[in-house]
Amino acid sequence: MVGPGAIQPLTTRIAAAGARRMVVIADVAVAAGPAASVAAGLEASGAAVTTLTVPSGERSKSAAETVRLWEALAALPADRATHVVAVGGGVVGDLAGFVAATFVRGLPVWQVPTTLVAQVDSAIGGKTGINLAAGKNLVGAFWQPVGVACDSDTLASLPDREFRSGLAEVVKYGVILDAPLFSWLEAHAAEVLTRDPAALAHVVSRCVDIKARVVEEDEHERTGLRAVLNYGHTVGHALEALAGYGALLHGEAVAIGMAAAARLAAGTGRWTVDEVQRQNSLLARFGLPLTAPPGLEEPVVERALAVMARDKKSLHGRVRFILPTAIGRVELTDDVDSSLLEAVLRDVLLSVA
Amino acid sequence: MVGPGAIQPLTTRIAAAGARRMVVIADVAVAAGPAASVAAGLEASGAAVTTLTVPSGERSKSAAETVRLWEALAALPADRATHVVAVGGGVVGDLAGFVAATFVRGLPVWQVPTTLVAQVDSAIGGKTGINLAAGKNLVGAFWQPVGVACDSDTLASLPDREFRSGLAEVVKYGVILDAPLFSWLEAHAAEVLTRDPAALAHVVSRCVDIKARVVEEDEHERTGLRAVLNYGHTVGHALEALAGYGALLHGEAVAIGMAAAARLAAGTGRWTVDEVQRQNSLLARFGLPLTAPPGLEEPVVERALAVMARDKKSLHGRVRFILPTAIGRVELTDDVDSSLLEAVLRDVLLSVA
Repeated sequence: MVGPGAIQPLTTRIAAAGARRMVVIADVAVAAGPAASVAAGLEASGAAVTTLTVPSGERSKSAAETVRLWEALAALPADRATHVVAVGGGVVGDLAGFVAATFVRGLPVWQVPTTLVAQVDSAIGGKTGINLAAGKNLVGAFWQPVGVACDSDTLASLPDREFRSGLAEVVKYGVILDAPLFSWLEAHAAEVLTRDPAALAHVVSRCVDIKARVVEEDEHERTGLRAVLNYGHTVGHALEALAGYGALLHGEAVAIGMAAAARLAAGTGRWTVDEVQRQNSLLARFGLPLTAPPGLEEPVVERALAVMARDKKSLHGRVRFILPTAIGRVELTDDVDSSLLEAVLRDVLLSVA
Repeated sequence: MVGPGAIQPLTTRIAAAGARRMVVIADVAVAAGPAASVAAGLEASGAAVTTLTVPSGERSKSAAETVRLWEALAALPADRATHVVAVGGGVVGDLAGFVAATFVRGLPVWQVPTTLVAQVDSAIGGKTGINLAAGKNLVGAFWQPVGVACDSDTLASLPDREFRSGLAEVVKYGVILDAPLFSWLEAHAAEVLTRDPAALAHVVSRCVDIKARVVEEDEHERTGLRAVLNYGHTVGHALEALAGYGALLHGEAVAIGMAAAARLAAGTGRWTVDEVQRQNSLLARFGLPLTAPPGLEEPVVERALAVMARDKKSLHGRVRFILPTAIGRVELTDDVDSSLLEAVLRDVLLSVA
């Protein structure tokens, strides 16, 4: 369900699903707002509703927080007639989704994403997971939500940096699969930035449609189709790990990763410099960074390469990249010359911004 | 693959599956025996083979051990071209299976069960999981192994108590679904107890067939068919929790649980006293207990009821039991009078043995 006020019809649907107990797992930052609305809607059904809060920030996607939530569910006690409702950004969606996927070998989960990045990306498609010290999302499960509500009302109060971060994933959809969306964003950047409701509804439903279509065709990342969604994420994830989780917002890291991937695409003769420029201009117009913040610890290129080799998208230890060939079209390759890769990483990670 | 020497053809199959890296997760007790044979077989393929050992005993099915293995896999690093091979009893199979199910959202796993209970039960069917303080197997995933090798050679050196514990699950198959197997066990108890290779091969393949058939028809425990495999496990799991994990072997707890369920079945008019007696005689002939060991902490009945209410087989907080109506036939019910249940629990848990 996408649009203003979408939380309400979702709670009606959840209440009708016949759960005896419902557990709202919420980012503490939305506990008084959207999570309270969700809980109130569910309580009307007469079921027992419990809210568990999770500290804001990427650090909550940890094994320790997972164990804490498992134990909290056991203490209720939750059983197979319990439904989980995740309310918050990508962190809570991924964490609560993984907890739901694994408690008593799987509880039904509903997603109520309250950030732009979660609405257009992480809440759709059933990827759940947590981070290890060695890398992001190294542990997780594929676990599809029963339903998802992308309520645009929750975006109005989003901090500006958070909102802009979500736009990186929106631009990504345009670059990888949807040239008309990309052009629409170029033409309507101002309305998007002022969070015009009609513009947001258009953007979110378009992105949800693309994501859902890709996931339907390749749910478990077997054919390579779903992998295209990882455009910008190979370098992006490495950068998040190097900067320390939470120092960069996910979308900011992805924007930098897209800038790096674009240079690899141009450097291997796949993509025109003109289109690279169009991508980077749109990202910059949305206030997104194209190079890493200063202060990364040396030897930064070697460390980035090591993290990328551990990325779960790598196969047989070779790093794989999604590289554009045109706006709206990408390909998957592990054939990137290592000196080109090192040069691009050096420029992107060590720029004196 | 079932039979003497089954480890060897399995390693050939795993080697042919094209993994770049293989991680053997082994009970430390079999590290020098079956796990070393598995590793040697795999190394012949030219792949990188790493063995990670796990301390023996139910306490290893913990969140802490899970996190340790996740981090060990990340450190290798393991990626999606890595296969996991679990070598050991049910503890290692469940733990390594869960780790494989969740690392990078799922690595292929092969099971090499080296105990009777694991060969006839836990290694077949894809249930993986770990315990929480609040109860057994409260966390886990359904994750089917690519292949399973039940090598009867590994049973020859099994400690007697461990071997007899596995026979509880064998008797269980007879009671729930296979009257001819039950009669065969009554007629051939002596050969089984001396571990006659032909008798073991017969028993293990028959049990694997039953288990595989049930799981194929109800993989995720939705129709209730798979639930019949939990005969004896409702009380059995509670007893394991009360006695402290590891104090009773799993099969011993299940035998006591079967004795309790049989009394509930007789007490509710479902099952004849004669057949209850046949079940209990066969269990006793295999050296299995029918009542709990002395020394459980009071109030033991109340504590058992509380653990059973948290069991993931319970629905809407009501405890469900699998009760026989004849040898080879059972039904699922949550309609057991609480005074009968309490009386049976009191007798079984507080007997002065």
